Amino acid sequence: MHKETVKDIGEKELIKRLAKYMPPDQASDDCAFIDTKRENLLINTDLMVEKTHFNNKIISPRDIGWKAVTTNYSDLISSGCIEFIGVNIGLVLTPKTEWAWVQELYEGFNEALNQFGGSILGGDCSRGESKMISVTAIGLQSKLKLRRNACKPGEVLLTTGIHGLSKLGLQIRTKQIKRKDLNLNEELIRDSINAFCRPTPKNKIFKTILRSSEFSINKEIGCTDSSDGFYQAILDLCKESKCKAIIDYQKIPKKDYWPKGQKWDQFYFFGGEDYELLISLPRDLATKLMQIDNEISEIGYFAQGSPNVEIKNYPNKYLNNISYSHF
Amino acid sequence: MHKETVKDIGEKELIKRLAKYMPPDQASDDCAFIDTKRENLLINTDLMVEKTHFNNKIISPRDIGWKAVTTNYSDLISSGCIEFIGVNIGLVLTPKTEWAWVQELYEGFNEALNQFGGSILGGDCSRGESKMISVTAIGLQSKLKLRRNACKPGEVLLTTGIHGLSKLGLQIRTKQIKRKDLNLNEELIRDSINAFCRPTPKNKIFKTILRSSEFSINKEIGCTDSSDGFYQAILDLCKESKCKAIIDYQKIPKKDYWPKGQKWDQFYFFGGEDYELLISLPRDLATKLMQIDNEISEIGYFAQGSPNVEIKNYPNKYLNNISYSHF
Repeated sequence: MHKETVKDIGEKELIKRLAKYMPPDQASDDCAFIDTKRENLLINTDLMVEKTHFNNKIISPRDIGWKAVTTNYSDLISSGCIEFIGVNIGLVLTPKTEWAWVQELYEGFNEALNQFGGSILGGDCSRGESKMISVTAIGLQSKLKLRRNACKPGEVLLTTGIHGLSKLGLQIRTKQIKRKDLNLNEELIRDSINAFCRPTPKNKIFKTILRSSEFSINKEIGCTDSSDGFYQAILDLCKESKCKAIIDYQKIPKKDYWPKGQKWDQFYFFGGEDYELLISLPRDLATKLMQIDNEISEIGYFAQGSPNVEIKNYPNKYLNNISYSHF
Repeated sequence: MHKETVKDIGEKELIKRLAKYMPPDQASDDCAFIDTKRENLLINTDLMVEKTHFNNKIISPRDIGWKAVTTNYSDLISSGCIEFIGVNIGLVLTPKTEWAWVQELYEGFNEALNQFGGSILGGDCSRGESKMISVTAIGLQSKLKLRRNACKPGEVLLTTGIHGLSKLGLQIRTKQIKRKDLNLNEELIRDSINAFCRPTPKNKIFKTILRSSEFSINKEIGCTDSSDGFYQAILDLCKESKCKAIIDYQKIPKKDYWPKGQKWDQFYFFGGEDYELLISLPRDLATKLMQIDNEISEIGYFAQGSPNVEIKNYPNKYLNNISYSHF
């Protein structure tokens, strides 16, 4: 059965349909108006390109939509965003793209927006040889600035959660790892696929910090998200803050049933598309935060020294950085 | 000779090089911080896709960069932007893209930013099967709101300039029109190619309006830019303002040496990628504005009636809308 494609619809009708996903007062003008409520803003753009980040076999359009918004929001959170305003969406489609695909994508955008806040502000749509989604997210900067360059020697390094799952989920979906061959635990498989398809930005922890009276306002806190992988995130903190990190392999929180071995450590360290936060705090505040939120773990500390990541209780004190390159 | 490609460089080095085009305090974090100076904002995203909007034969990377910023700014201007904050850039490149191409593109971005204001705030870069540039521009909303839905019956319709040149420039560059065959005037050819490659957003006229004491502040004025073509822009104003426009063919300003004939009228009406403003004003303010800026012309007026464009002094009172569809 022939399904309705973007070419069948034509550009005008397509834009009209997409406008239904936006607030009515935003859809009709040259560009979107933002009432900033007199706050300062954070802005972030992320691209998702067909065959690079997704294809029909490994992730549904609804999950792509969810992921495009949530991964973007994760970047805003890791800079101290307190409220999401919304997203501008640049959408490149092939003429043969089915309308149902576009519709599910937008339902995914709005599912994430409904859960975390903000709306579709505007965007652009164009024809291309393969699909591409460019999402620019805008949020309000809270009084607490989270910055990569604000880690200080002596501070404790915290993580909001577990790493490596998304990479495992991708490898299962692309059949680079076969479930049966590895006899992987079913719960681990489910959580890994979920981590890859439906990442959840860590917005609650940050609200916890803001609510707590121990954390003075107008302060900069060392922080980044682990979208480029656990190891790369810590290295980024070290480079921007001009100090070194010492992490304890035994303290790193792992998923139940996470297998042992070098391959699995690689997934953990260099997985990427993890959206946990890595936070640097003085000892007293770190302890306080772990008391408030028991998903947060202490995994090491920062020290004076040239920017690098040192690993205690592990055969290799220093790792070969094998972080991902698109090119 | 092998020229350095994106693949040769690798992603990390590429991002490092691109960061040099940004203010130093923006380059190092998860997302860009915007000091809004307590104003409200306008945001707009435009896509430029290889083979859809550009290819190496018809426009240089420097001109693409210029155009990506200026056409975006034109949308901001036509909503009442008084100051440009900057742009977030999503860049999709093929591995074989030469670094020199990327460099020229960014020089084009910055050439436009230096001329009109704002800077590169941040962005993302990814691999793809063809090149794509997604630019999201942010600007401050002035007290004067320019909106498509604010035209009123009885108001005069003004244009800031001439239409159809960009389309002619494109057709010359793609060799759909051969210069010699048509014996076109050299100045017209030069101006047309310039209109296609180096469009200039009409930011001055708006400052003129704001400076003039006759224009009360906090007012909405009917306005759009003609990026989708002269006819489509007027039709958009009619649709959003729920009234009709009557324009006088004899009053429409044309370029010297612009040829006569239906084909040329089509270029004029349905050309697209014109970045003039179409403004709706009461008679007294319209007269005042034309006195201040002699490039502005009166071309018709708005009247009560169902949304449509009527043309006086022309064989066809109503035109067949043949505006461009990407799909």
